[in-house]
This record gives sequence, C-alpha cells and structure tokens, in this order.
Amino acid sequence: MKNVSFKINQTQGKARTGVLRTPRGDIRTPAFMPVGTAATVKAMMPESVTATGADILLGNTYHLMLRPTAERIERLGGIHKFMNWDKPILTDSGGFQVMSLAGLRKLTEEGVKFKSHIDGSEHNLTPERSMDIQHMLGSDIVMCFDECTPYPAERDVVAASMRMSMRWAQRSKDAFGDRPDHALFGIQQGSTTPEMREESSEALKSIGFDGYAIGGLAVGEGQEAMFDVLDYAPGMLPADKPRYLMGVGKPDDIVGAVQRGVDMFDCVLPSRSGRTGQAQTRMGAINLRNARHIDDPRPLDEECTCPTCQNYSRAYLHHIHKSKEIISSMLLTWHNLHYYQELMLGLRAAIEIGTLDDFAAAFHARREIGDIPSLV
Amino acid sequence: MKNVSFKINQTQGKARTGVLRTPRGDIRTPAFMPVGTAATVKAMMPESVTATGADILLGNTYHLMLRPTAERIERLGGIHKFMNWDKPILTDSGGFQVMSLAGLRKLTEEGVKFKSHIDGSEHNLTPERSMDIQHMLGSDIVMCFDECTPYPAERDVVAASMRMSMRWAQRSKDAFGDRPDHALFGIQQGSTTPEMREESSEALKSIGFDGYAIGGLAVGEGQEAMFDVLDYAPGMLPADKPRYLMGVGKPDDIVGAVQRGVDMFDCVLPSRSGRTGQAQTRMGAINLRNARHIDDPRPLDEECTCPTCQNYSRAYLHHIHKSKEIISSMLLTWHNLHYYQELMLGLRAAIEIGTLDDFAAAFHARREIGDIPSLV
Repeated sequence: MKNVSFKINQTQGKARTGVLRTPRGDIRTPAFMPVGTAATVKAMMPESVTATGADILLGNTYHLMLRPTAERIERLGGIHKFMNWDKPILTDSGGFQVMSLAGLRKLTEEGVKFKSHIDGSEHNLTPERSMDIQHMLGSDIVMCFDECTPYPAERDVVAASMRMSMRWAQRSKDAFGDRPDHALFGIQQGSTTPEMREESSEALKSIGFDGYAIGGLAVGEGQEAMFDVLDYAPGMLPADKPRYLMGVGKPDDIVGAVQRGVDMFDCVLPSRSGRTGQAQTRMGAINLRNARHIDDPRPLDEECTCPTCQNYSRAYLHHIHKSKEIISSMLLTWHNLHYYQELMLGLRAAIEIGTLDDFAAAFHARREIGDIPSLV
Repeated sequence: MKNVSFKINQTQGKARTGVLRTPRGDIRTPAFMPVGTAATVKAMMPESVTATGADILLGNTYHLMLRPTAERIERLGGIHKFMNWDKPILTDSGGFQVMSLAGLRKLTEEGVKFKSHIDGSEHNLTPERSMDIQHMLGSDIVMCFDECTPYPAERDVVAASMRMSMRWAQRSKDAFGDRPDHALFGIQQGSTTPEMREESSEALKSIGFDGYAIGGLAVGEGQEAMFDVLDYAPGMLPADKPRYLMGVGKPDDIVGAVQRGVDMFDCVLPSRSGRTGQAQTRMGAINLRNARHIDDPRPLDEECTCPTCQNYSRAYLHHIHKSKEIISSMLLTWHNLHYYQELMLGLRAAIEIGTLDDFAAAFHARREIGDIPSLV
C-alpha cells in the first residue's frame, strides 16, 4: 500500500486546499517549498526555515550529484540527516539545471552527457540515473527526468521535446520501481500549445503518478502567457492528485496560479533576493540598498511577525547590506521566507472560508499602493 | 554614586573570578567578549551569541563612526537597540584601528587625522572626539583614546608614545565626565619594558579609572614575550578593578593570561577563523577544508553541546565550506564562540574550586594529542 496520499479539504472555484501526507510529515497545500540547492537553504539554519512555517524543502539533484555526490550522502545516512532537516524533501531530476548550468552537453534519446560547472568532470544523466540519484539522496518526492522545452520553440520542436519527455517519464516510472514511502511526480510539458499540453497529460495519466507537475513555464514567457497556460493546463491533470508548478515564482504569480488550481510551488526568489538586499512584502518588493532607508527607524513591515521585522529597523537593514555583513542575507532571507509562508497560509485560510477573491483583491490593492512613504 | 562595580569572588594564585556589574547586566569574569565590529557579530544572530553564554560584546568605534556613523546610531536610539543586543557593550577608542586600517593618517599631540578606508573621507579622532562618539553609541564600557605603541620600538619611542597615551588618558577622563551608568577604562602601555609599564600604571592610577586594560600586546611579539609582560604587568594595576587584555587571543593565550591575573578578553579569532573553515576545539584548531573530513560522519567534537556539534557531521561541514555556503560561516562561528565561552566557564569553575592548575594541565594535554584520528 502507498504511504503517500493526497486529500483535498476544500475548493473554491478552481482553487483548493489539501494535505499531502508522507511518512516524514504532512504538507499543507497550497504549499511553497523553499529551495535548498546544495543541502542548505542559503543563509538559514534549518530550524529557522521550520519557524517560517515550511513543511517541505526542494533540493537540486544536479548540484548534489556533483558535490558532495549522491553516493556520499547515501553513505552518510541520506539527505535529511546530512542537512539536519527531518521533514519531507522534494528533489528535481537534474535535467533543467544540466541545461542551464553545465558546460558542454549532448542531448540524446538516452539522456544528457555534460561537464560539471564545478570541475569540468564528465557525467551522464538519464532517467534511470536520475531515479538512482534521487533514491540515494532519500528524497521523499522524486521528479521524473524530463527536458524542459526551451521557450519560444517551433511547434515541431515542442512536440518532439514533449514526446521524448513522455518516453523518459515511462522510463523514470519503471526505474523508480515500488517505493511505498516515496512519491514520484510526472511532469507535463508542451510549452504554450494546448494540444501538446493535452497530449502530455494523457501520456502521464496512462503511466500513472503520485502527483503531476506543470513544467516548461517561468522560462521567459511572461506572466500573461503563463496564466494563459494555467487557465487550462491544471484541469488536464487528475483532480485528486497534487499539482506542482515548477520554479514559480513571484508572489503575484503564486496567487494567480493558486486561483487556477495549482497546489505546490518552489522558487529561489525569496532566498536569492534576500541576499541582494531585496525584501518581499505585502507592499511589493523593497530594496534596502536604497538611501531612503538610511535613517528610517521603522521595521520593514509593521504587521510582519518575523524576527527581522520584530527586532530591526530599516536603517539597520540598510547599514548591514551596505556593509556586506552576512547577517543581512540571514535577516532578509528569513523575512522573505516568512512572507512567502504567510502568503500561503493566507491563501489556504481564504480558500477554506470561501473568500479567495477578496483575499486576492486585497493582496493586489496593497501592492498597488506600494511601500510606506519615506520619512525624508 | 557609580552604578558600575567590580567584585572579586575567588582567587587562586594570581587568577581570580569576579562579577563586573553594569546597569545592563552582569559580566562574569574571566570573560571573553565576542567582537561585533560593524554592529553585528559576523554570521550570528544576537540571540545565538547569547546562547553561547556571552555576557558582553565589543564594538569598534572606528568602523561605526564611519558607517553608519555614531550620530545616526544615537538618533536611532543607541547601539543596543540598533543591533538588537540589550546586554553590555564595550567599545574600543578607534585609535588602534585608525593606525591599522585607515589610509593616509597624521598623528599629532592633538590626535589622529585620517582618511576612511571605505570612501576616503577625512576624519579627525582625538580623545575628546572618541569620548563623544562612544557616548553617542551608548556603549557601557568606554575605552580611553590611546596610541598602541608599535612593536618592536626603541626605548625612547616607547616612552614618548606611552607618555602621550597617558596625556590622552587624562583628556579622555576629562571629556568622559560624570556618567554613573557607564565605565571608563584606562589603557596601560609601555611595550615590553617593565619600567615603562610601571610608569604608565602609576599615571593611570593617579587619574583613576573603573577598569584597566593592558594594551600594546598581541601585536607581533609572540606568546613568550607577551607572557613575560603578563608576569608583571597585571600586578601593577589595582587589584580591585577589572583587568582587560586587549585583542587576545588564541585559547592558550587566554589560559596563560588568566593564570597571570587577567579578567577580560576580546578577539576576532573565533568569528574570523570560523569564516575560513577553521574550528577552535579542545583538540586545537581543526581545518574543515581538509579532505580527511569528506566522508567523516562524526561531529567536530563529540563532547561539545553547540548546535553545530549536536546536528552536523564533519562531512557536512566540509561540504558546505567547499561549496562556499553561508551556513558554513554560521555553524563554525557558532561552534567557535561556544567553545570560547565554555573555556571561560571552565576557567571560572576551576578557579572557584581551586583546581586551575589541573584544568590548565588537562587543557594543554588534550591539545597536545591533537585531533581525533582520521577514519581513512
């Protein structure tokens, strides 16, 4: 019997709340997964990530297979023990990052040959190898090995790419085998073409997965084109399984995608932007580098309950960012991840009580106003 | 009436335990003060610094006067509120760092003119200005403005430098004024010459301070020469006031100095070495960069109770240091500061029960053995 299950609690329009149960813990959906690329959510202690409300992390197969290697992590007792995180972890398949980060690479039906961006060493990633790596890591939710179709692409390129991904999906499923405590997610491709998305969904459903991701978005098409796809793509996937929109996104991307029926998200934005002095807030993105904050005794957001907003002024955040102090990355990443988890909490609560439209309207209205007026 | 006081609890030989009382809290001596140069102990949340057992931090006047400026910190409510640390803070006078960090500078009887290493702006630091800055910062323990005599120096250079520092000590005392909630420490100079140390001590005592620092050491003279000075210099200072050895040091420097009657220390070593992958432990300094740790599932130190040793393997620490992850600085700095505070706790406990010599012997013996044997 499968020890991973998904239960929908409530729906409003296409949006829904639910719980994805795993032996390592429950994931409340809609869920945001902070990115822990190299076995650490950058600038955060794992207990601080937990304090923001995260139920699950995402790890990157490509980075981990190169350093410290999946074999080493397996010998050391798995990724959870290694990085001191005992809740669920989802790992991507490595394919996307091979294409964006690796040096020379060669894509064939078999898989991808590439050279490491760290030391130039040669590697071979196939559906079977990706499943093997994710097994060694011990990740709770395993992603199929696929090709993320470049955007834009001609129709025949989209079709060929998507169909190869579907053959790889079957090979992934076969290689994944019978692992009752772990989930395998298929990935829908097909770019911005409804027929291709439909064909991809049918192929995935006939193989059968524990969850379904929407891939090939957030790759430069813009929010409008992405929402066009999200107007139909989630509905092609099984209603009783979690739907995961990969690599998304900005707060307003997430709100729009939840309204369109998506359950899971991951994005580097909250952690990466924190390291460059940017705060994600109810008022939009705020740049602490800006001189307007230099004498400002107020917190980033007076309504926020994170440690950064509770204990530090904008003037301090400006100072530590200008001084290139590590605590700047620590405090802003913490705030940003807290903000994202509070956003998900707000979305879930609104769906539960049937006020998602009001919630979304208030969300957009507050961002429209923008940051609080400067004191100078 | 002065609201800062020092009480000696117990002595063993020249060593002593005590409590330095301030309105912001008690400082248990012998005490180690972590360095928070730019209003942050690098890579640490203040609550984590507290968790290591620190009673007091050191801040750097030179850095803070340049950025964000003392005037700004005063407007924002003082250094404690600014950096979210409500326990005592000691600030140096700025003199030492002007000489080591600033660009062009000109030293006269009046003070030091210099250019900022950050933006080249021109500044003037005098005893009066240093007192003013430390007042604006709101630091609890204020250091006299002095010149740290270079090492080595000719006898007449040492004498001239020391005598100017003593004139500056009088000007510092005059400018400090009557501040019952705050302490002013004088700084003994005189390099490695007993007569000069004696003359300096007499000058300071006739002015009268709340505590006395031993300056001009740990500037390249080596441990043997430093201990030679510490064999006599602390005894020249009032027995009923705290004695602070500035900028020291390595763990074995601290043990030797405590045995010679020193009560307070500060050093960047635990935080700085943490950022370069070095751990300070009972077994000596351990370099996590070393490949011997790559597959080692053991903690840095099995007996250490810090979060790093409780939750992470040497293999993980090696991985995150090699991957240049911020959490490497966070975990190693935490461990190092914890180690230093445990060392001080051990020294205090040993003095209390009269076993300091045994404690020191065990300390040296464990370091003599070195790190645990590699598994490979």
